[in-house]
Amino acid sequence: MSTGHTSPSARKSRIASTMAKAKIFTEAAPYIRAFKGKTVVIKYGGSAMTSDELRDSFAGDITLLSLVGIKPVIVHGGGPQITRAMSQSGIEPQWVDGLRVTDSETIRVVQSVLAGQVNPDIVRLLSGHGAVAAGVTGIDGGLFKATPKDERLGFVGEIESVDPTLVLGMLSQGIVPVVAPLALGADGHAYNLNADTAAGALAEALGATKLVYLTDVEGLYLDLGDEETLLSRVGITELESMIASGSASAGMVPKLRSCISAMRAGVPQAHILDGRVQHAVLLEVFTPEGIGTMIEPR
Amino acid sequence: MSTGHTSPSARKSRIASTMAKAKIFTEAAPYIRAFKGKTVVIKYGGSAMTSDELRDSFAGDITLLSLVGIKPVIVHGGGPQITRAMSQSGIEPQWVDGLRVTDSETIRVVQSVLAGQVNPDIVRLLSGHGAVAAGVTGIDGGLFKATPKDERLGFVGEIESVDPTLVLGMLSQGIVPVVAPLALGADGHAYNLNADTAAGALAEALGATKLVYLTDVEGLYLDLGDEETLLSRVGITELESMIASGSASAGMVPKLRSCISAMRAGVPQAHILDGRVQHAVLLEVFTPEGIGTMIEPR
Amino acid sequence: MSTGHTSPSARKSRIASTMAKAKIFTEAAPYIRAFKGKTVVIKYGGSAMTSDELRDSFAGDITLLSLVGIKPVIVHGGGPQITRAMSQSGIEPQWVDGLRVTDSETIRVVQSVLAGQVNPDIVRLLSGHGAVAAGVTGIDGGLFKATPKDERLGFVGEIESVDPTLVLGMLSQGIVPVVAPLALGADGHAYNLNADTAAGALAEALGATKLVYLTDVEGLYLDLGDEETLLSRVGITELESMIASGSASAGMVPKLRSCISAMRAGVPQAHILDGRVQHAVLLEVFTPEGIGTMIEPR
Amino acid sequence: MSTGHTSPSARKSRIASTMAKAKIFTEAAPYIRAFKGKTVVIKYGGSAMTSDELRDSFAGDITLLSLVGIKPVIVHGGGPQITRAMSQSGIEPQWVDGLRVTDSETIRVVQSVLAGQVNPDIVRLLSGHGAVAAGVTGIDGGLFKATPKDERLGFVGEIESVDPTLVLGMLSQGIVPVVAPLALGADGHAYNLNADTAAGALAEALGATKLVYLTDVEGLYLDLGDEETLLSRVGITELESMIASGSASAGMVPKLRSCISAMRAGVPQAHILDGRVQHAVLLEVFTPEGIGTMIEPR
Amino acid sequence: MSTGHTSPSARKSRIASTMAKAKIFTEAAPYIRAFKGKTVVIKYGGSAMTSDELRDSFAGDITLLSLVGIKPVIVHGGGPQITRAMSQSGIEPQWVDGLRVTDSETIRVVQSVLAGQVNPDIVRLLSGHGAVAAGVTGIDGGLFKATPKDERLGFVGEIESVDPTLVLGMLSQGIVPVVAPLALGADGHAYNLNADTAAGALAEALGATKLVYLTDVEGLYLDLGDEETLLSRVGITELESMIASGSASAGMVPKLRSCISAMRAGVPQAHILDGRVQHAVLLEVFTPEGIGTMIEPR
Amino acid sequence: MSTGHTSPSARKSRIASTMAKAKIFTEAAPYIRAFKGKTVVIKYGGSAMTSDELRDSFAGDITLLSLVGIKPVIVHGGGPQITRAMSQSGIEPQWVDGLRVTDSETIRVVQSVLAGQVNPDIVRLLSGHGAVAAGVTGIDGGLFKATPKDERLGFVGEIESVDPTLVLGMLSQGIVPVVAPLALGADGHAYNLNADTAAGALAEALGATKLVYLTDVEGLYLDLGDEETLLSRVGITELESMIASGSASAGMVPKLRSCISAMRAGVPQAHILDGRVQHAVLLEVFTPEGIGTMIEPR
Repeated sequence: MSTGHTSPSARKSRIASTMAKAKIFTEAAPYIRAFKGKTVVIKYGGSAMTSDELRDSFAGDITLLSLVGIKPVIVHGGGPQITRAMSQSGIEPQWVDGLRVTDSETIRVVQSVLAGQVNPDIVRLLSGHGAVAAGVTGIDGGLFKATPKDERLGFVGEIESVDPTLVLGMLSQGIVPVVAPLALGADGHAYNLNADTAAGALAEALGATKLVYLTDVEGLYLDLGDEETLLSRVGITELESMIASGSASAGMVPKLRSCISAMRAGVPQAHILDGRVQHAVLLEVFTPEGIGTMIEPR
Repeated sequence: MSTGHTSPSARKSRIASTMAKAKIFTEAAPYIRAFKGKTVVIKYGGSAMTSDELRDSFAGDITLLSLVGIKPVIVHGGGPQITRAMSQSGIEPQWVDGLRVTDSETIRVVQSVLAGQVNPDIVRLLSGHGAVAAGVTGIDGGLFKATPKDERLGFVGEIESVDPTLVLGMLSQGIVPVVAPLALGADGHAYNLNADTAAGALAEALGATKLVYLTDVEGLYLDLGDEETLLSRVGITELESMIASGSASAGMVPKLRSCISAMRAGVPQAHILDGRVQHAVLLEVFTPEGIGTMIEPR
Repeated sequence: MSTGHTSPSARKSRIASTMAKAKIFTEAAPYIRAFKGKTVVIKYGGSAMTSDELRDSFAGDITLLSLVGIKPVIVHGGGPQITRAMSQSGIEPQWVDGLRVTDSETIRVVQSVLAGQVNPDIVRLLSGHGAVAAGVTGIDGGLFKATPKDERLGFVGEIESVDPTLVLGMLSQGIVPVVAPLALGADGHAYNLNADTAAGALAEALGATKLVYLTDVEGLYLDLGDEETLLSRVGITELESMIASGSASAGMVPKLRSCISAMRAGVPQAHILDGRVQHAVLLEVFTPEGIGTMIEPR
Repeated sequence: MSTGHTSPSARKSRIASTMAKAKIFTEAAPYIRAFKGKTVVIKYGGSAMTSDELRDSFAGDITLLSLVGIKPVIVHGGGPQITRAMSQSGIEPQWVDGLRVTDSETIRVVQSVLAGQVNPDIVRLLSGHGAVAAGVTGIDGGLFKATPKDERLGFVGEIESVDPTLVLGMLSQGIVPVVAPLALGADGHAYNLNADTAAGALAEALGATKLVYLTDVEGLYLDLGDEETLLSRVGITELESMIASGSASAGMVPKLRSCISAMRAGVPQAHILDGRVQHAVLLEVFTPEGIGTMIEPR
Repeated sequence: MSTGHTSPSARKSRIASTMAKAKIFTEAAPYIRAFKGKTVVIKYGGSAMTSDELRDSFAGDITLLSLVGIKPVIVHGGGPQITRAMSQSGIEPQWVDGLRVTDSETIRVVQSVLAGQVNPDIVRLLSGHGAVAAGVTGIDGGLFKATPKDERLGFVGEIESVDPTLVLGMLSQGIVPVVAPLALGADGHAYNLNADTAAGALAEALGATKLVYLTDVEGLYLDLGDEETLLSRVGITELESMIASGSASAGMVPKLRSCISAMRAGVPQAHILDGRVQHAVLLEVFTPEGIGTMIEPR
Repeated sequence: MSTGHTSPSARKSRIASTMAKAKIFTEAAPYIRAFKGKTVVIKYGGSAMTSDELRDSFAGDITLLSLVGIKPVIVHGGGPQITRAMSQSGIEPQWVDGLRVTDSETIRVVQSVLAGQVNPDIVRLLSGHGAVAAGVTGIDGGLFKATPKDERLGFVGEIESVDPTLVLGMLSQGIVPVVAPLALGADGHAYNLNADTAAGALAEALGATKLVYLTDVEGLYLDLGDEETLLSRVGITELESMIASGSASAGMVPKLRSCISAMRAGVPQAHILDGRVQHAVLLEVFTPEGIGTMIEPR
């Protein structure tokens, strides 16, 4: 018979500290209720994908979302890894009007890095935190069909159609889909997609409730160079002005365009989050404070 | 266009504080995973039912359990309220061998208090915290059938059969059942059940994963008068010795017997918790520390 | 080997008498077919709830309807029982402009009587006749949400919304729901509803096929004092005239208003029946003769 | 506005007469409850199939059983109709050891009469009473597979296997299956089955709750010639003695053998009813009196 | 241990021959894909029903369609068999304005031949090829309700309503329905339907993808007497002209009218096929060549 | 109006040629019936994966199997591609006791080749033939969990558990799963599996009906060097002797061991096929001739 090992006073102090935890849990309740059963598409990239600490906090967040009944879908990119693999393979980049050409040799490296490195690494990462995750490329189950974006660029795809059947099947089994931004062309070739665009198109097709971009900036600035002008909320008409006026950075433009398109198609919320902050996703979903920039359909 | 109202430094400090929250959430993940989709039967009574602060913390806990996919079932008693109502009605208690007789006038007061006061009050309490709850008496849907426990005691019931169909239907709809310990006799009369016993029998019938007793003591003591002998874990063979030797208090005996019976029927865990501690239920389920006494099927 | 105990001639006479029964069963067939799988909301009150003989005939009727695949839903009041309980509790009624005030002390008595006496008594009554019944208050599962009808009257509710999920779940399990006319206010308090109004609102929300009021009159009279003017059928435009002209009795007005509203919302039939007639419900549903007043959506 | 056309006194007298009906309905409740959702296989033949009055009472009974949620399955014969059709076709019966040979010409007449006359006539009869019925031959959906019973007899089949899929599908749609006793042989030919045997085998395969034979006798007599020895109940061991001792009539033997076999396979009740009594089926199922002989699995 | 019995060279030659088969299978893939899960209603009659060789090729085709997940529904006629049976029964045909009268004696012969001969023969034929088939008359399950087409013609029906529930149930079980063109009249009598019209009406009610008429001609000729004018494709406006101008044969008119009506109701394809060609149905569905005349909704 | 473009005689000759096709289809019917709805696990590798012509015939076969309702699951290897990629990456192979070591650098190449090249290439190949296919690695959805096979060999895995949930989900959606032989270790690392072993283990876990190995030999020879001793059938006890006696080639041993294990676990058939023969899979499943060696559970 094992008696308690702690004195009454020690028990009281321990209880006080755990009660603080309980308070935090119960504060999260309204947010869990609001997103239960809802789909949240998260574009995962940048520092959040490269720093070990941030990778772990990301994986913990996704696992917890999945556990409490929210349905996260991860779309990842892989730019830096592709660049590294190409230089290792000794492939000389080709340029047309300042844009990199994805020839048949290059698309094989892209496919190999996205589907063979980045994607299974994320699946293992999530599995290690207790989630049930599975990798999907846009070629699987006819998820993304693409046409060439510009013939001179080679196998760079423009999304033509999205068939979310396979992803929906996984979500109904409680599996977290991890999606690589590849597509099948009508010519039977693999095409590379912009991951930001793929995330937006998938959010639309899934009828997602949130579209989240994890970035390496704090959010959207009204004035690109000025930290003091971080926007906490912004409407899509304002985004259009920013794109038109050139006040959004080049890397931000596909994200903003995707947000505008997704919202027009009925996705009610989008977010530009700072992926350099640990637990950015969880904080956005579970706490009243919010972080980064929230985009609204106005 | 609304710009952020907080300075960069204020943002950093806010993020640091919310990150502490995120850590607590992610620590709870393994416990949520372990109990997801599982049924937890909680006998609710004592101070946890009478103090406003404790009532609120209890309701918050149950709401959160329900939100994250755990299935709580509440069984309540109502002894003090019944005693008060009887004295208000001017009913003179009758005694046989030191036990109170539940005659036909008394059982009407019991039914009125349990089904008409305590039960709907708990349903309103939970609803106020965002749970979807519904009251059930043991008479509803043939839940509890009873025979007289002792003819001299009148309408005091011994459980003869449990039909959990109605409760299972509610659980499948995401509703938290709140159960009043009444039963239908073969004579068509209402019978009063011991709430501790009803909770145990219901846990058995539902194939619950946990049976929790919220009490007004810290847990089970090896030596009744000595706070230092609080047991953190105890097996059912030890419980049987304690009952046999008389070292368990009179109020504790039905709880312990129910735990023994439920575990023999396959319920794998039971707990005697201190209902005077805020968030006792949540802490027991969600944190590694545990509180009170855990009973094990050994 | 047990031989027959009756002579051939006795057998013939017995067969003749049972054949008369068979004829009655087969005559009911078209009515059963017409209402199979349909929901019938029955406001239960008055003599049908107080006379033992009428209670039994009512319970037999509901049981049989349920057995043959029709879905009865019972909504009950409890005015006389509440009045009696208030006088027993020594609560002095308060009046505003001739209307009784339901203060916080009163609403507790109302809740106690409706949920703790009348409702479980009806559930036991039906159970005793073989039905599977379960009690529900309007607070359970968010069934009725209410706002104060008139601030001076206290906890008297006006129905704001109806969520029939819990009741539909019971119906799909073959359970007869017995509904007490309480509601949850936005302030977390219980509110008392007019039972006639609650029955009509529930019929609307359930898409019921019939709304039946069991009353202590024969039906609706064209001329209130004159038995010869009993209406066998009446349209809702006529009802509106009767309400406007004051030719409907005060107790009848909420019933008539509910019938008008329910029919406008698509409930195709409503009935004012004489609950003092044994088997009034069964006769209305199962026989061509009909009884009382049928209200038609014209 | 239509006022009531009947005087108060006339209304009272009408109510009294309809109340007698209500009493009969409510007495049937326990029997309906007992057989709800259960399958009852009825061998239909003899006078019940030839007299117009008895046909109508049979059709009314089956319709009512189906309406209240009991699942009747009709298996019919057609001996007299076949004999008539053969003589019309001028086919000369062949005999072997006193048994009629079913050659290829004969089996075509049999198929034509059973599937083309008797079966659709019964379907129309039931449809006329409001049931939804559909004809099935044992050839449809692989229901009955047969081997030749005796090579000298030609296309007379012995049941080899029963596949109740098609019949179960109909029952789940609320359709009353009407089954003609034909089977498919391994040689692709149609075979004629004994309808009594087919009914028993189908009851077994469906897991029926009752197997009913409608005959032209009052029931089973202990002493064939003596009306006073009608058996109201009999066990299967007694039946075996009766068959062995030759005290059962030739036409009764296949029925008794099928009852014995069905009961050994788990069908709990079988009945030999007098099909010459109107509403024999309804009376057997719905009233306490019972008629004919009940066979018990003892 | 059994070694291979064929020499290496024999193996190579065998493989070459089987590879030719494989090529044919894979060429059929696009056609299977296009019709998988789709319903094809086939009017079966003429030579295809009378020649043994053609019967076998038809049965093989239907079996294969069913196997690969296409849903064939067979509607048959029986004119020649009815004429033969009537003369065997010695019934003298009556005529009104050149049309044969179907009196009550005649309709019994019709029912007997269609439901008792033709229908079960087709079911046996299909069963012999491995399909699971079941016979249905239009009387079963309320499939076809009819009114008299012309009072002078007796029991000749005009389709009033189609209830495809029973047929849909069979299709969902993987059963091939074989439908006899009978209907139930409001008077409870059986009515004879034109099989071509019944096939078209059933195709409409089932939302079929193809309606196929197996005939004894090659297809539709622009110029009735001239083989060179066979139409490979034709639109429904052209069909209307052909009917109006009298350039369609009398037997073709009901087929053409049914095609027009079915296409107007959404059936996208209809075909007039030459049933004298072996495997006509399979060739039409599985090969690019097509045969006969395809009718298009233009 | 488009008339037929072919003369009557041309039509006849065309029909004759297409009828030969129809005959071949109908001969396949019994094989389709036998495997409809059944799962067939196919280890895909060797020449069938490298020759363009064989790749196309393989893809056509799998597409057709999937179309007619058979459920193929592809497990692939990638040895030659891995060897090539390693030499391109300049990784120097390490050896222990003659076995290649899979260190952390090597496993990244393995993962990259299997998941990033071979797997998506097969998915695209199948998609190009009309199948709906999706790639899966053994890491996805917890499909394969592994322990190190031999610590000195590094990330070479021994299968510890198989969770076929994700694969079953795909099969139920009509998707063809394409599985890369990777596994997740308890240490969170990816492990390489022997593809033959993975195919066998998956066949077991799925309850497959057939396990097929596509190889670069004709089948299993009794005497390794002698083409004349090709075995057409062999039992698992004989296989055990062959393994024990060393008469099976090194590459064949894992296949044979997997066949033995799968058959012991209830997989009823296994085959060693010659992947150098076009349409080998289709011929094995669809024709009576069979090819290669069939392994039987005796």
